[in-house]
Amino acid sequence: MTAFDDLLAYDHTTQALGQVAGRLGWDQETMMPRGAAAQRGEEMAAMESVLHARRTAPQVGEWLASIDADALDAVGAAKLREIRRSYERASKVPADLAATIARVTSTAQGKWAEARQADDYAAFAPVLAEVIGLKREEGAALASGGDIYDAMLEDYEPGTTGADLEAMFGALRPGLTELRAAILEKPAPKGVTGQFDEAAQLELSTVLAKAFGYDLGHGRIDKAVHPFSSGSGNDVRITTRTNPDDPFNCFYSTIHEVGHACYEQNIDDAFLLSPLGRGVSMGVHESQSRIYENQLGRSRAFTGWLYGQMRDAFGDFGIGDEDAFYAAVNRVSNGYIRTEADEVQYNLHVLLRFDLERALMAGDLHVSDLEAAWNDRFEVDFGYAVDKPSNGVLQDVHWSVGLFGYFPTYSLGNVYAGCLNEALRAAVPDLDAQLAQGETGQATGWLRDNLQQHGSLYAPREVIELASGQTPGPSPLLAYLQDKFTHIYDL
Amino acid sequence: MTAFDDLLAYDHTTQALGQVAGRLGWDQETMMPRGAAAQRGEEMAAMESVLHARRTAPQVGEWLASIDADALDAVGAAKLREIRRSYERASKVPADLAATIARVTSTAQGKWAEARQADDYAAFAPVLAEVIGLKREEGAALASGGDIYDAMLEDYEPGTTGADLEAMFGALRPGLTELRAAILEKPAPKGVTGQFDEAAQLELSTVLAKAFGYDLGHGRIDKAVHPFSSGSGNDVRITTRTNPDDPFNCFYSTIHEVGHACYEQNIDDAFLLSPLGRGVSMGVHESQSRIYENQLGRSRAFTGWLYGQMRDAFGDFGIGDEDAFYAAVNRVSNGYIRTEADEVQYNLHVLLRFDLERALMAGDLHVSDLEAAWNDRFEVDFGYAVDKPSNGVLQDVHWSVGLFGYFPTYSLGNVYAGCLNEALRAAVPDLDAQLAQGETGQATGWLRDNLQQHGSLYAPREVIELASGQTPGPSPLLAYLQDKFTHIYDL
Repeated sequence: MTAFDDLLAYDHTTQALGQVAGRLGWDQETMMPRGAAAQRGEEMAAMESVLHARRTAPQVGEWLASIDADALDAVGAAKLREIRRSYERASKVPADLAATIARVTSTAQGKWAEARQADDYAAFAPVLAEVIGLKREEGAALASGGDIYDAMLEDYEPGTTGADLEAMFGALRPGLTELRAAILEKPAPKGVTGQFDEAAQLELSTVLAKAFGYDLGHGRIDKAVHPFSSGSGNDVRITTRTNPDDPFNCFYSTIHEVGHACYEQNIDDAFLLSPLGRGVSMGVHESQSRIYENQLGRSRAFTGWLYGQMRDAFGDFGIGDEDAFYAAVNRVSNGYIRTEADEVQYNLHVLLRFDLERALMAGDLHVSDLEAAWNDRFEVDFGYAVDKPSNGVLQDVHWSVGLFGYFPTYSLGNVYAGCLNEALRAAVPDLDAQLAQGETGQATGWLRDNLQQHGSLYAPREVIELASGQTPGPSPLLAYLQDKFTHIYDL
Repeated sequence: MTAFDDLLAYDHTTQALGQVAGRLGWDQETMMPRGAAAQRGEEMAAMESVLHARRTAPQVGEWLASIDADALDAVGAAKLREIRRSYERASKVPADLAATIARVTSTAQGKWAEARQADDYAAFAPVLAEVIGLKREEGAALASGGDIYDAMLEDYEPGTTGADLEAMFGALRPGLTELRAAILEKPAPKGVTGQFDEAAQLELSTVLAKAFGYDLGHGRIDKAVHPFSSGSGNDVRITTRTNPDDPFNCFYSTIHEVGHACYEQNIDDAFLLSPLGRGVSMGVHESQSRIYENQLGRSRAFTGWLYGQMRDAFGDFGIGDEDAFYAAVNRVSNGYIRTEADEVQYNLHVLLRFDLERALMAGDLHVSDLEAAWNDRFEVDFGYAVDKPSNGVLQDVHWSVGLFGYFPTYSLGNVYAGCLNEALRAAVPDLDAQLAQGETGQATGWLRDNLQQHGSLYAPREVIELASGQTPGPSPLLAYLQDKFTHIYDL
C-alpha cells in the first residue's frame, strides 16, 4: 500500500459517512416524526463532528504532503485534487468558528421563518447581521488574503470568481429585461383551470421521472414541502410536491429533481464512494436539472406529448390544443417570487441576489440598507414595487443559513444549460421527433456520456467546455430564450 | 471538566452515532431502493468502523482508569458501568476476528436462506460449522477463561448465566408440556374466516398502537417483511405486516412492537443519548413486548373490546361472540414454527434452542448431529416428528448470523412478564374493567413508572425485582398460563 492507497481507503470511509449524513437529511424532510427534531439535531451534529475530524485529520495532511501528484494518472490526480481541496477548506476554518456558525445559523433559520411570517424585516436584520459577520470571518479565513466572496464561491463552484460571474451576468441582464418587457406587452396566454387529483399528479410524475431516465431501482420518490434530490451512486432519492390548482408545480419540480438525480445516478460506477463520485459543482448540477426541466421538459415537442398524458389523466382542463398548452406551460407573468418564476424572469431574480450578497460580503452594503437596496433594484428590473418583505428580501431561506455564493450557481447552471443545449441539438438533429413521443433517451444519453458519467473527474468549467465544445457564456441561453419566446408570444 | 465529564461528552457522540446506525437499519428494511444494498453495506461498514474505533479508543480506557467510581452518585455509577462494559467487550475481541465474523455471517445468512428454501440442512452445515468456530473463538476471547456461553449471554442479558437459565427453564418445561397435552385433547376453537382488507388492518393497528400508548409524535408505523422496533428516545419507529387471511398477525405484531417501542419512548428524558437511554437487556425488552401483547392484549377483557372494533371494521368474520373470539385469539394448535406459536407452546420452542445452542458452544454437540438432535427433542416435547428442515433446524435466521445466547432472552422475557403481570394485577385491581373499554393507560402507566422510565439505570434482574417485588422465577408465568387456558379450554 502506498500513501495514496492509504489516503483513498481512508477517504472511502469518509465518503460513505457523508452519504449516511445525506440519508439522515432525506429522512428529516420526509419520514422523521415531528417530535424527533431536537434529537436529530444531536445525531446530525455527531455525524458532522466525525466528518470534520476525518476531513482535517493530521494523517490526511501527512499523506497529502508525501504524495507525488505527478506520478498519478488523470483519475488519481483528480481524486487527489478533490481530497486536497476538502482538507484545505476544512482545515482553514477554526473549529470554534465552524461550531458557532452552525449554532447561529440554526437559530437564524427559525428567526427568518418568523420574520417572514410577520413580514418584518427589522426583526430579522440583527440576526442576519450576526450571520454575515460570522460568514465574513469564515470567508477571510478561507480567502487567505484574497477576495472573501471568491473564497465562498469555491464551496459551490470551484474555479469561478465573482468577477467571472459579474461579466457573465452583466451580459445577460439587458437581454433578459428587454425580452421580459416585450413579452409583457403581449396578451397573456390562458392557464389551466380546475382541480387536479393528487394521486393522479403523483402517478403522472412517476411516469415523467421514468421518461427522463430516473432509475427507481436506485432511487425513490416521496413528497416533501420543498422538492430536492439527495444521495449519490446507487441510492439517489428525490421528492416532489403537489398543488391541486397547479399540476405544473409537481411535474416540473419532479423533472428538475430528476435532472439532479440522474447526474448522480449516471456517474461512472468506478467512482462510487470516491471523491469523484458526486456531481462536481452546484452550477453543473443545476445545468442538468434545468436542461431536463426547461430545454427538454418545456419544449414544444415534449409538451405536445405531455398534453396528451394530461388529457388522459385529468380530462378537460381548459386548454384546447398542444400550442395553447405549450404557451400555458411557458406563461410569463408578473410575480415577486424567484422559485415561481418562469425561464425569462428567473435569472433576473438571481442576478439581483448576486449583486446584493456580493456587496454585503465586501462590506459595501449594510444590513440596515438591504431591504431598500432590494426594493430599488427589483423595481428597476421588474417595473413595479415590492409590496411586502415576504415577497422581497425575506422570501429565501439561503442567507439565514449562511449560504452566500450559492445563489449565482442557479443562473450559472442556466447559462451552462444553454451551452449544452446548443451542442445537444447539433448532436441529435431529430431530437424533437423523439421528444414528441415522450422519448428522452437520446438527449439524456448524450448528457450522460458527455457530462454526467464524469462525476468530479473534470473541473466544472472544464466539463462544460468538454461537453458543449465552447467556452461557457450567456449567448446560447439568450438566443434560446429569444427564439422560444418570440415564437410563443409572436414578438 | 473532570475525566468523567469528558468521558460522558465523548460517549454522548457515540450514542448519537449509534442511533444514526439504527436509523440506517430501519431505512434498509422499509425505504431503501432494492438496488442500493451493496452501497448500503459500505455505508453501514463505515458507521461500524467509526463506532468500533470510538468504543475501543485508548482515551476511553484512560478515562475509565482514572475515574473513581465511589465518588459518583447512583446515576453516574450506572453510566460508568455501561460504558465500561461496552469498552471491555469491544476491546476483548481482536479487530480481525470481529471483521471476519461480520464477513462470514453476512455470507452465511444468504446460504441459510438458500438451504431453507431447498430444505437441505447438509448444504448449510459447513457454513454453520464455520460460524460456530468463529463465535467460539470470540466467546473464548470474551470469557477470559470463564464459560463461553455465559460470555455470549452477557451481550444480551448481562448478569444472567446459562446455569440460571437452565434452572429457570428446567422448572418451566414440565408444566408447559403437561398443559399443552391437556389442551390438545380438547376440541379446537373455531378460527376467523374470510378476507381482511389490508388498509382496514393497518388502520385498526394504528388504533391499537395508540391504545397502548405509542406516541406517533415520536415514532411512525411502516410495513416490513419482519416486524421490528428501532431507535431510542424521541425517534422510535415500528413496523408491522399484514396477512389477508389472518388479521391477528398484524394486530399482535403491532402490539408486540409497541411494547418494545414504549419501553424506549418512556425512558427518563434525562437519560437521552446517554448509556442509560436504552432498554437494559433483550430479556427486559421482551418482557415489555410480551406483557403488552399477551397478558394485556390477549386478555379476555381486552379481546372483548377488540372484538367490537373488528366487527366495526370487517363485519362478520365467522365468530359469534366475545368468548368465542377470546378462544380464537388464544387458540393452541400443532405447528412447527416458533414465530407462529401460541403462548403455551412458544417457550417450548425456545427451550429446545437454548439447550442445543449451549451444547454447540460447549462442544458437546457437533453440527453434523444438530438436525437429529433437533428432531429428537422436538418429538419428545411436541409429540410428533418434524417433517422437513425448513420446519425444524433451518427455520430461524439467528444462528446463521452468529446470534448465540439470544434465543433464551425470548423466554426470559416471558418469565419476567409473568412476574410483572402478577404485580401489575395486584396494583391495579380493576384493570379488566379498563381493558374491556380498550383503556390500557393504568397498566402501561404502571409499567412506565415502575420499569420503563429507568432505562439502563438498574441491571436487568434488579429492575424486574424492583418492579415486581419478587425474585424472577417461572411460577407466575406458569400459574397465569394454567389459569387462562384452563378457563378457555375447560380443562
